[in-house]
Amino acid sequence: MTQRVRVQCFTVTSNGIGAGEDQDHERPFGHVDPKDLMAWRFATGTWMNHSDAGTRGIDDYIERDYARGIGAEIMGRNKFGPIRGEWPDHEWQGWWGDEPPFHTPVFVLTHYPRPSFTLADTTFHFLQASPHDALEQAKTAAGDNDVRIGGGVTTVRAFLDAGLVDEMHVAVAPYEVSRGLQLWTHPDELTDRFHLERVPSSSGIVHHFFWRR
Amino acid sequence: MTQRVRVQCFTVTSNGIGAGEDQDHERPFGHVDPKDLMAWRFATGTWMNHSDAGTRGIDDYIERDYARGIGAEIMGRNKFGPIRGEWPDHEWQGWWGDEPPFHTPVFVLTHYPRPSFTLADTTFHFLQASPHDALEQAKTAAGDNDVRIGGGVTTVRAFLDAGLVDEMHVAVAPYEVSRGLQLWTHPDELTDRFHLERVPSSSGIVHHFFWRR
Repeated sequence: MTQRVRVQCFTVTSNGIGAGEDQDHERPFGHVDPKDLMAWRFATGTWMNHSDAGTRGIDDYIERDYARGIGAEIMGRNKFGPIRGEWPDHEWQGWWGDEPPFHTPVFVLTHYPRPSFTLADTTFHFLQASPHDALEQAKTAAGDNDVRIGGGVTTVRAFLDAGLVDEMHVAVAPYEVSRGLQLWTHPDELTDRFHLERVPSSSGIVHHFFWRR
Repeated sequence: MTQRVRVQCFTVTSNGIGAGEDQDHERPFGHVDPKDLMAWRFATGTWMNHSDAGTRGIDDYIERDYARGIGAEIMGRNKFGPIRGEWPDHEWQGWWGDEPPFHTPVFVLTHYPRPSFTLADTTFHFLQASPHDALEQAKTAAGDNDVRIGGGVTTVRAFLDAGLVDEMHVAVAPYEVSRGLQLWTHPDELTDRFHLERVPSSSGIVHHFFWRR
């Protein structure tokens, strides 16, 4: 099976915004509330650990696939944390507590070196590298599995612009916000390079599936 | 995680027919051609072993989930083969050749006993049992995984009527046939017991997701 580079469950507003402004230690998405943006994920049976209260329709099928066959993640530094510039110390270990939800090696792109560390079954590595070189390392770490480009917006854009993404799922939420980091002006910008299938869900989300032409 | 009983990728025509008449050794679906009925599955990247020619949209997401987390299958005797009544011998070993696509124990419901046998990583067991009792055995065999009710129509109906199905995905193809085994007159018949979400795919299929109320 070919090793693939995938974006999964990446959620933006109807005007393409995937994160707000003014990120700080309490607000990983800045002024955009993830409880609104990601409401579709939180309602699924899979997210709710298979509680009967969770939905089991199309949103859940997609949520189930988030981690499936993924052997490594690449993320931007701003997905890892709100600190900019030199690390003042190594106290910040991400937003996720003692058991991060990745369960694989994670490669954090940053201009500021820092030693790797492990929390439960996730090891964070810090790389100053081009998308291409970071991907080589992540592919090796992933073994036979795929590599997920985990975001944020800037990182997904960098990998798209470098032509390194094989497959991308973006969930478009049914509301706008006025400012923030924009993944696209319109998804059709990508159809020269990707097939695009749009699938509306009863949650109000429109799932956008892209795969290479 | 709760062990679930699931129907996956079960395909019917727009008038609910899941298999034709006049099944024989060459035609597992009788006069209905599976190349038409199942065209949506055959076009997916997953079915095509991740060939780049395959689709990677919603149909593929669903195809990917066919085997995921499944630890045993229950099927009716007519899914296993075209022989009726007593087994003349044990030569018939299913439609699937030396490497059946199940990769788990498979429980075949039949009134005619026969010894278990193994092909590659699939073992077929033959049970004269009620849906409830067969399910108990399949659940034990599945360990922590789910049980798939694999069909055909009569077997899916028997498990639905016994209230034993937790979750069901049915793909409705965009054409009718005039005769055959009918899963339902209309899917809304099941909405007293199940949530139902309908999701149209660009392949022409309408995916129907049912999960318990």
